[in-house]
Amino acid sequence: MNPVNYNFIGIDLGGTNIVSLLVNKKGEIISKDKRKTLAKDGKEKTINQLVNSAKSIIKEGEKRGIDFESILGLGIGAPGPLNIRKGIVCSAPNLPDWRNVHLTKILRDKLKLPVFLENDANAAALGEWWKGAGKNVKNLVLLTLGTGIGGGIIINNEVFHGSYDAAGEIGHMIIHEGGLPCSCGKRGCFEAYASATGVVKRTITAIKEGGESILLDWISGNLEKINCKLVYQAAKEKDKLSQWIAEETARYLGIGIANIVNILNPEMIILSGGMSQAGDLLLKPVRKYAKRYALEPAIKRVKIVRGSLKDAGAIGAVVTVLKRKKLGV
Amino acid sequence: MNPVNYNFIGIDLGGTNIVSLLVNKKGEIISKDKRKTLAKDGKEKTINQLVNSAKSIIKEGEKRGIDFESILGLGIGAPGPLNIRKGIVCSAPNLPDWRNVHLTKILRDKLKLPVFLENDANAAALGEWWKGAGKNVKNLVLLTLGTGIGGGIIINNEVFHGSYDAAGEIGHMIIHEGGLPCSCGKRGCFEAYASATGVVKRTITAIKEGGESILLDWISGNLEKINCKLVYQAAKEKDKLSQWIAEETARYLGIGIANIVNILNPEMIILSGGMSQAGDLLLKPVRKYAKRYALEPAIKRVKIVRGSLKDAGAIGAVVTVLKRKKLGV
Repeated sequence: MNPVNYNFIGIDLGGTNIVSLLVNKKGEIISKDKRKTLAKDGKEKTINQLVNSAKSIIKEGEKRGIDFESILGLGIGAPGPLNIRKGIVCSAPNLPDWRNVHLTKILRDKLKLPVFLENDANAAALGEWWKGAGKNVKNLVLLTLGTGIGGGIIINNEVFHGSYDAAGEIGHMIIHEGGLPCSCGKRGCFEAYASATGVVKRTITAIKEGGESILLDWISGNLEKINCKLVYQAAKEKDKLSQWIAEETARYLGIGIANIVNILNPEMIILSGGMSQAGDLLLKPVRKYAKRYALEPAIKRVKIVRGSLKDAGAIGAVVTVLKRKKLGV
Repeated sequence: MNPVNYNFIGIDLGGTNIVSLLVNKKGEIISKDKRKTLAKDGKEKTINQLVNSAKSIIKEGEKRGIDFESILGLGIGAPGPLNIRKGIVCSAPNLPDWRNVHLTKILRDKLKLPVFLENDANAAALGEWWKGAGKNVKNLVLLTLGTGIGGGIIINNEVFHGSYDAAGEIGHMIIHEGGLPCSCGKRGCFEAYASATGVVKRTITAIKEGGESILLDWISGNLEKINCKLVYQAAKEKDKLSQWIAEETARYLGIGIANIVNILNPEMIILSGGMSQAGDLLLKPVRKYAKRYALEPAIKRVKIVRGSLKDAGAIGAVVTVLKRKKLGV
């Protein structure tokens, strides 16, 4: 078999969606499947979804002339904590009944493919490093801005897992001790302020404190309908309260990024996840504040950019296969 | 020449002291020189001190049968920011007139030895990794607790410099945005709270606010005489105010360490520098708070210990020679 004809499967297992890709060695997408994660229906159901999603892209690939035999492996990015070498999901906040699930073994048995596990944010970092904003960048940190804030650290072209696969928990870095409560039970975490959840909470607080906003019309007064996208949309339309929230969010993001830059001095910080879709409205002030809060020698050459891939996590899951099978990437 | 007979010079250039060691390949100290840094007398004077200090240990070594020819190189740890590859000290807060000093070239010309430069905290981390508390530890972070807080990060048995030699500025990580002012001009930095300077400032504030303390007797009411060592001594003697300061300091250190552990998940955190001499009075509560503020999977196996070397910086400077000359360490 011609080695350039090798193919790979990459899956991103999120609390909201499952995305599966069939990808060739160049990183070109041959087929894709996306489905809502039925996390509430339990572990077995979700695992079946993973298997069916993989099978559907394999089938789709076959239609396009891709032999099953040419698929060398499957990589999957999942929320943690994980035991990466063993392929075990220890637990996952958004997948309630997952406890020490030997995911690689289960998928290997059902799909008859070698399976490799990676943390979801690390996979996104690998994806951007291979084919996205981080191409040819040796040291980078990716932040996933969503319900929480995840972190993926690439050092010398490799994911840095730390000593026990727990590195990159950037969202739980304390930036204001004693501050806002976080889902982890502590106070003042980066993600309590700067995640989409943080944006929504701070917006609701501001409105409850009497702030006027176009948002109140948009949601017909039902504060539960506020989401991060709406806030940035309102900011774009010059809604004062939303503009203020956006500025404050950029400041918190700037502080967290400055801390990372002071500690790791990477070449690049990549912002990904739903919130990063706010684009320049987010990026421009974030760059300003990161510069303000970091030391000058550490920040001066760091690029702060948006991720450029739609499915960075699933693409990055493919990289885990390439790297662990030593296929040269 | 028998390779086991090779020798090395390691120098720690601090704002307070210059320590020079002549060391054999096993890390055994053959001769040592320590002198007060006359930083105020200007750059030329300090450089002369470095040269004289090196010459004095070389001479001392000769008395003990060490040929100059057997000395393969000199490593020097210096405050930064630095350009490590080029061997330039860009600037240094405690060495006022140092601006883009090509230190390796100057010392090489005067001493006729290959010279290698390393950041002072990185050198201390390398020293502890080679011969101290961090022996056989692949990933560790060392914190120097003194006037400020320096950081040295070792990843996969190598110092991590970041992309532009600026990694490890852990002291300027913001842990309480908008908080206490820091020497860097920002607010809420880790070192504004948890360095020896932070301890002294918080103690003085507490006394000025009416706190009673045995310290007032010890210093005959002259608040300028308060130093970190005295505060920990008073805490040892059950002085309530000092005990409270020590507890609060441990909490701040715990927050900063928890952040590092969440981000880098090292095997070990090593506390060094003057303040670490407080021993268990510092370490025990620091471990408690680090555990409280870090995520459980990241902290559970991390050892938090004191450095075990007297001259970690100078010993680590030797390691830079061994590593860069690829002499197997």
